[in-house]
Amino acid sequence: MKKKAGKNVTNIQTPLTDLEIAKKAQMRPIKEIAETAGIPEEAVEQYGKYKAKIDVSALPKKLADGKVVLVTAISPTPAGEGKSTVTVGLADALSQRGEKTMVALREPSLGPVMGMKGGATGGGYAQVLPMEEINLHFNGDLHAITAANNALSALIDNHLHQGNQLQIDPRRIIWKRVLDLNDRALRNITIGLGGPAHGIPREDGFDITVASEIMAVLCLSANLTDLKERLGRIVIGYTYGKEPVTVRDLGVEGALTVLLKEALKPNLVQTIEGTPALIHGGPFANIAHGCNSIMATNTARQLADIVVTEAGFGADLGAEKFMHIKARQGHFSPDAVVIVATARALKMHGGVPKQQLKEENKSAVRAGMPNLEKHIDTIRRFGIEPVIAVNRFISDTPEEIREILQWCQTHGVAAAVTDVWEKGGQGGLELAELVIKQLNKPNQFAPLYDVKDKVVNKIRTIVREVYGGEEVQLTDKALKQLVDIEQNGWDALPVCMAKTQYSFTDEPKLTGRPEGFTITVREIIPKLGAGFLVCLTGDIMTMPGLPKQPAALNMDIDTEGNITGLM
Amino acid sequence: MKKKAGKNVTNIQTPLTDLEIAKKAQMRPIKEIAETAGIPEEAVEQYGKYKAKIDVSALPKKLADGKVVLVTAISPTPAGEGKSTVTVGLADALSQRGEKTMVALREPSLGPVMGMKGGATGGGYAQVLPMEEINLHFNGDLHAITAANNALSALIDNHLHQGNQLQIDPRRIIWKRVLDLNDRALRNITIGLGGPAHGIPREDGFDITVASEIMAVLCLSANLTDLKERLGRIVIGYTYGKEPVTVRDLGVEGALTVLLKEALKPNLVQTIEGTPALIHGGPFANIAHGCNSIMATNTARQLADIVVTEAGFGADLGAEKFMHIKARQGHFSPDAVVIVATARALKMHGGVPKQQLKEENKSAVRAGMPNLEKHIDTIRRFGIEPVIAVNRFISDTPEEIREILQWCQTHGVAAAVTDVWEKGGQGGLELAELVIKQLNKPNQFAPLYDVKDKVVNKIRTIVREVYGGEEVQLTDKALKQLVDIEQNGWDALPVCMAKTQYSFTDEPKLTGRPEGFTITVREIIPKLGAGFLVCLTGDIMTMPGLPKQPAALNMDIDTEGNITGLM
Repeated sequence: MKKKAGKNVTNIQTPLTDLEIAKKAQMRPIKEIAETAGIPEEAVEQYGKYKAKIDVSALPKKLADGKVVLVTAISPTPAGEGKSTVTVGLADALSQRGEKTMVALREPSLGPVMGMKGGATGGGYAQVLPMEEINLHFNGDLHAITAANNALSALIDNHLHQGNQLQIDPRRIIWKRVLDLNDRALRNITIGLGGPAHGIPREDGFDITVASEIMAVLCLSANLTDLKERLGRIVIGYTYGKEPVTVRDLGVEGALTVLLKEALKPNLVQTIEGTPALIHGGPFANIAHGCNSIMATNTARQLADIVVTEAGFGADLGAEKFMHIKARQGHFSPDAVVIVATARALKMHGGVPKQQLKEENKSAVRAGMPNLEKHIDTIRRFGIEPVIAVNRFISDTPEEIREILQWCQTHGVAAAVTDVWEKGGQGGLELAELVIKQLNKPNQFAPLYDVKDKVVNKIRTIVREVYGGEEVQLTDKALKQLVDIEQNGWDALPVCMAKTQYSFTDEPKLTGRPEGFTITVREIIPKLGAGFLVCLTGDIMTMPGLPKQPAALNMDIDTEGNITGLM
Repeated sequence: MKKKAGKNVTNIQTPLTDLEIAKKAQMRPIKEIAETAGIPEEAVEQYGKYKAKIDVSALPKKLADGKVVLVTAISPTPAGEGKSTVTVGLADALSQRGEKTMVALREPSLGPVMGMKGGATGGGYAQVLPMEEINLHFNGDLHAITAANNALSALIDNHLHQGNQLQIDPRRIIWKRVLDLNDRALRNITIGLGGPAHGIPREDGFDITVASEIMAVLCLSANLTDLKERLGRIVIGYTYGKEPVTVRDLGVEGALTVLLKEALKPNLVQTIEGTPALIHGGPFANIAHGCNSIMATNTARQLADIVVTEAGFGADLGAEKFMHIKARQGHFSPDAVVIVATARALKMHGGVPKQQLKEENKSAVRAGMPNLEKHIDTIRRFGIEPVIAVNRFISDTPEEIREILQWCQTHGVAAAVTDVWEKGGQGGLELAELVIKQLNKPNQFAPLYDVKDKVVNKIRTIVREVYGGEEVQLTDKALKQLVDIEQNGWDALPVCMAKTQYSFTDEPKLTGRPEGFTITVREIIPKLGAGFLVCLTGDIMTMPGLPKQPAALNMDIDTEGNITGLM
């Protein structure tokens, strides 16, 4: 996230990287942070000096009624928005204002860290620490998920090899292996080669760990028992007679839960300013719901008065799923929503190519506003009045910023400029004030559809109300799958749209605010453990590749263990 | 390891499993254990309440001159020997006698835990704790090695995909992927399928993580700088022109070291009786050297007066490599060697099938003694007078035990019966006394070969002096590889024999003490990072499979997080 998110003009003489800023920061021992947060000592399981896992069962019984502020964004562009940075900065600003605040964030995947983009720990003076350790292995959650996912795969292939009592059709196994890496060569593979001693040959493939259903399951589980129940429900494939085969049929939901026992505990860290932060879980925002765990959010609600959290991609994907999947399963109502916008990103929505972003272009900003406008409209449909965070970047001109603020005023939506990258919480005080104002209003939140509605109706509601489109079309394949889903009695689940994040449509290049379009659903994949139906629109990449110059090439470490080039 | 190692007759009425015993044990906070061991608080990085990583750089500078006791065994049989149990019990016995003692052990792999045999944490009242956490993920070391190994694979395949500047021949890539699981279906696979966007198709395969060269490298590294150097030297394959390609050529040794930074720190835990234990690293004992890390052993030597440690399999494999590879690279000399033997295992070497082990059979015990005799002979050739631990099992009769002790007396070798499974340190006091007597003698240790000798001579020395065989034969393939090794200047490295653990020969069924045999070396694989030449004899399995009834099927966890069926 080097110099990406909200870097202020005054900072141009001292271009420290995020890693350098993180290293200069004085961290407080995690025990102190826990004390600040009201976590008793017996609930704190330290992982080194600055990280801990929280044993939720050892927390004092208290209603989880802290208010939830969701930070979302306009449709992402290659220009960068700085959503995590605003999330952290807003929490620090709320802390500065004396509010008992916690942050809840997703944990980073190693794949992008080694690949191209760096972690998800915020940027500048609005970061969570210790940045290196959060980005590298953290407290082992993703590795535990990888192990559980692949143990299940090994147990499936062993079942085939040892006589296949369940009559699983090797051609209909939908459970894939995972690694927490970007590795395109593993997308399509054949396994079980080499003769009878080495398993049953079949086609397979690896996804990245964050795309594993186990990640979604972990993030939606209320507790260990719920986790085991959900794992047992996962459908791993179908028999020769086309009957679904679950983890429970294989009898290994206990073993998988054993492997995930520690990973289910939320991880406590701190922001640069010492605000307690829970970082836990990080499912994909396309084929999954893209939010940190319910355990983390509800633990934070139990401890703090305000919980600032984020969801992946733009409001059409992350916020929609936050409302319909996470909030519903977590039994809470979001109380306020911040939509992050930047002049740069709006200019791209207004048609400016990335290379020309540095030039002032007020009309392009104006031309991009309809994208923000649709996201505002969406949040209002959920019964919440959004607050806009105009996250300032180094190249933004005062005129461009003024353009956005004026538009917001004209359209009656609250907006504040944030300078959290450079100033930390100090740069988010105005935003914090607007958020507090919103939190003091009565909660009018309501989901847009009933889960008991027909699947096509649920999809149509999202296409019309959230994407601003017209109609939904199902391919023959999806229609056939839908028949199976209804026959199996799986249709009363929320839908989880897997759509490009760059456009409201299923075509990445259509930025801005397209209208009158149709969304084509190519496949509907039941995720019984997670408890949703994934609707695939367009090609969704579940195993990224590395770029020509991977970030790994720039990483190094000296004799004393000082890391450089992490980001 | 349920009811496997040294369980005493008196214990038959209360057949607690290892897990039940472990759960009943009262652990002391790891901070107290660290204090006992003389580890200052600033060097302790807690992982929960009962585990810690040790920041070796924060230890007081002190010569690492604690004496090293190696626990090895006769050639293993399906009857079980209880080597880890004796190692832990001996350390507790030494502690009871007032000696400042530490244990250094390998860490368990998840593959066997899920598969069939349980962990490597000892048994009964001679265990290291917390047993569940050591067996499940522990402090993330194996996961970090998996991640580093597979990040390298992804970077190699990305290099091919992005233009292959180094001209790596995809058919000659020897670097394989790994998972910490038993998964036979991944032994032979094809990757990069699906068209030009998804990499370059080639044959590949997965090993189990403990077979990764990175595991061997981590265990042999003196510090971070040495680790990076070694990682850089790893040969991942060859160019179209048959030139070796190293990790340094790819420029990613820094990134791999970054991923392994925390994994390089030894892990502190405790025995049931509170003796400090470092558990760190666990390379295969066939295609690698099968010992815990040099970092752990030398850290323990820095802190304690006596370090009790073990090596994999029997003395022909584990002890030989401990002497020639680990001690040499770690710059220490072993001071005493314990050879673990059991009546059961000796009976199997004497020709008794596993089903008939419960019947008393003195003549079979006698017939099996030559196996022990050869291991004694081997240890003496290294200049050390071994001590025999006769590890008592429930079915052993007093007559059988007496048979072994009489044989030892006749052959002038010190021997003690151990009851550590049932009695903890109390059951190892006699062994401890014999070991202390040995430690008080001057150290006469010397390796059996000079690393500068010719490769064939080094192998021949091991075959004759350690295995008791006659000759060594190289296949045409191995001969060809040897020419390449010499041309590349890699021949002045120790050899790492990959041989069946069940026999001194390369044929698993030839138990006891065969003579006059020839060992056939099929392949010689240079491991430049680890710093040895692997000599493959027979088929060596580097990715185990799961059995028909995997241990995973019996595992469960309740609402409170209590695990059952782990072992």
